[in-house]
Parts: sequence; C-alpha cells; structure tokens
Amino acid sequence: MARQQTRRRLVSTELLEHSARLFADQGYANTSFQDIADSMGISRPALYNYVNNKEELLAALVRDVLERVVQILERATARADLDEEQRLELALREIVANNARNTTRFRLLDRSEPDLPDDIAEMHRAARRRVLSLLTQLVTDAQEAGRLRPLPARTVALGMLGAANWVAWWYRHGVDDDAEDVADVLVEMMMRGAGRDQGRHVHSGPWAALALLKEDVTHLESALTTALEARPDAEPPPG
Amino acid sequence: MARQQTRRRLVSTELLEHSARLFADQGYANTSFQDIADSMGISRPALYNYVNNKEELLAALVRDVLERVVQILERATARADLDEEQRLELALREIVANNARNTTRFRLLDRSEPDLPDDIAEMHRAARRRVLSLLTQLVTDAQEAGRLRPLPARTVALGMLGAANWVAWWYRHGVDDDAEDVADVLVEMMMRGAGRDQGRHVHSGPWAALALLKEDVTHLESALTTALEARPDAEPPPG
Repeated sequence: MARQQTRRRLVSTELLEHSARLFADQGYANTSFQDIADSMGISRPALYNYVNNKEELLAALVRDVLERVVQILERATARADLDEEQRLELALREIVANNARNTTRFRLLDRSEPDLPDDIAEMHRAARRRVLSLLTQLVTDAQEAGRLRPLPARTVALGMLGAANWVAWWYRHGVDDDAEDVADVLVEMMMRGAGRDQGRHVHSGPWAALALLKEDVTHLESALTTALEARPDAEPPPG
Repeated sequence: MARQQTRRRLVSTELLEHSARLFADQGYANTSFQDIADSMGISRPALYNYVNNKEELLAALVRDVLERVVQILERATARADLDEEQRLELALREIVANNARNTTRFRLLDRSEPDLPDDIAEMHRAARRRVLSLLTQLVTDAQEAGRLRPLPARTVALGMLGAANWVAWWYRHGVDDDAEDVADVLVEMMMRGAGRDQGRHVHSGPWAALALLKEDVTHLESALTTALEARPDAEPPPG
C-alpha cells in the first residue's frame, strides 16, 4: 500500500513535468490528453488512473509554481534572526534561484493564463496578489527601518519581481552562469538600486568615518583644482 | 487613390489593435478569423480585403512590438550629444514607457510564441537577440567609461530588461501612476543598482565636495560617540 502510494507520487511528479513541457512547447490548447499519455509512454486509459483531464494538470501546475514563491516570501518574512534588509535580500535570492530552476513551469503558467478555467484563474490571480503584497511588505519594512530609500514600495517590489521573474525567460541550464552567480549579480543590483547611498557610511566606526573624510579631502582637492584652473587668473595648485 | 490608402492604413491599424486584444484575451489558437471580423464589425469576406489569414496578423504584431524596442535602442546608441550613462538611461526610460503603453501587445507576443510559424518565430528570436545585444553594448560602454560598476554586462542588461519588460505584466492605465512616474522610479533603481557608488562625487565642484566633507565630519562625530560610549571608562561627548 505504502509502496503503491510512493509509485503514485513518483508518477504524478513525472506527469507534471511532462505536461509542463508539452504545454510550454506547443501551447496548452494544442496539447491533447493523448499527447500527454504518449509522452509518458502509457496508454490513454492508463493515464486516467492518475488524472481526469488536462485541466487538472494545469491547475496543479499553477498551484505549484506560485505556491513556491509565496512560501519563499513567507519563510523570509518569518526570519526573526535577520534584519529587514537581509530578509528582503534572502527572499529575492531564493526567488531568482527558484525561477532559474523552474523556467519551463513559470513561463507555462504565464502563457496559459487565457486558457485557465475561471476558478483556477481566480486562484492564480489571488496567488499573484499575495506574492506582490508579501514582497511589498518586505520592501516597506526595510524602508521604515531606514535601510532602503523611501521610493514607492509597490513599484520597487514590481521592479524587483520583474528582474527576478524575467530569469525564467532567459536562463538556460548549462549555458548561463550558475543560478547562484546570476542571483548574486541581480540581487546586488536590486538591493543597491533601492538602497540608501552605498559607499557612504556602510562601514561603521570611527576608522571608516576617517577613511571617508580622507577620500573626500582628496575629492575636494581635485574639485578645487578643476574650478581654479577654469579661471584665467588662477595660480597653479601647489606641489 | 490617396484617400483610399489612408483609409486602408486606418483599418490596418485598427485591425492590428483588435487582433492583439483578441489574441491576448482568448489566446491565438482559440481566436478564429470570424472572431476578428466580428470584432471589427465587418464580414469575413470583407476582412479578406485586408489580410489573408490570422498568421499574417500575428506576424505583423510580432514585427511591430520588438521593432519598436530595437529602434529605441538604436536611437539612444546614436545620441552623440549624451554620455554613455545618459544613453543607457534614455533607452531604459523609453522602453519602460513603451511597455506601459503597449501592455497588451507585449504580452500577446510573449504568449503566442508556441503558436508562431517557423519563419516568424525565427524573426522573433533574431529581434530578441538584437535587443539584448544593443542593451548589453550600452551597459558595456557605460562600464568602460567608468560610469557603471564592472558587473557581468549581459546579466545586468537582462536584469534591466526584466524590470522594464515586467511593466507589461502589471501596468494598468488609469489605475497605476503615470507611465513617466513609474519610469522615474524603475530607471533610477536600475541605474543606481548598476552604477558606481552614488551619493559620492555625483555633484561636481568644490561646494559639493565641501558639503560631503561636512557630512563626513558629522558622521565621524557620531561614530566616535558610539565607539566611546561602548567603553566603560569613556567620558560623555561634549555639548
């Protein structure tokens, strides 16, 4: 009995993978139940042991894709050991890595929107709203903690989601850099893009503050040189 | 004759708009030639005066959507009056605004990829490659001019495209902020995210340099206060 359940689960996982690929490659509307059976190497009647129709498969895929992102965001939000900025950074990093691992499913979900039956479409919209609301909250928290600039939080969250989601459109396993390296670059860009002035006061303590002062004295020196050189009566800088 | 051509052009534009909406709403595969005729309020035979089949309409839409982005990038690249950073910023701003104006067409293009006949699919892939290559070049130029950090240029370009393209997935006319305001936020995020340390030396001239120095002195003061307060034998700061 337990063995049968394990087998059932294995087949279901494989079934979802195969359907996702077929739907993504040839479109949901163009994929028949027979195509799915063929891709699994089983007969159509045998396929009915696992699923009643292709709509059920699409519903399972939709649930699966967005549910993962919701879970990533909920887990990050609950991390009491991290500060607000680190929570947001963790969430973004995991979303990028997740999208790089699931490019087919993610794009499939997006493409099949017009084909979704009403109840699944509504579930999909609700999950999308939940993703945006959780991410916007993470951005707002980090802004209120003074770690990000006070830009419109929803637009910032959508910009971040865009850079992270687009990974599903371009990432190719074995061709592009490791997903972790891609995540490093994208997350650094996003955090820095929404962050407070970087390079200023990021390291704390008097020695870091002194280093900044010295850097700015050099900058003042060069600015003065440029400004004075522009004046016809200027003396050359000493040294 | 001229009048007839004008009328033809007007109908063609309207035809493209209607088809884009139908394809996007109900999927390309689920849209019949009759649906398109109905949406235009004309008969099917009358529709044949303008177009032979729905494939032609899809091809025109695909060409149109990506061609606009290619043109934006080519125009920005050719702007000799701007520096490397300004060219990139201009291109990003126009891409965001363009996507906000053409959400339906953009998503349609994306969704109909599996439905595209081979030659149109190849045209689409070539245009996507051209967009990425032009944007990557703009990023590389700005990096080599020392205006952006030396991150992997292709990944940076894809991150920027993601944030810009995603606008087509979420932007709603009349509900969200003006496209220009959205572009302001997103472009600032992207440029800052890929840029050199902002806030340091962005304004030139001795007065800006002095302002930075004063800020640093205040920062040093507070860093010293914190550091000294942490020592049990510390005196309170004066004042």
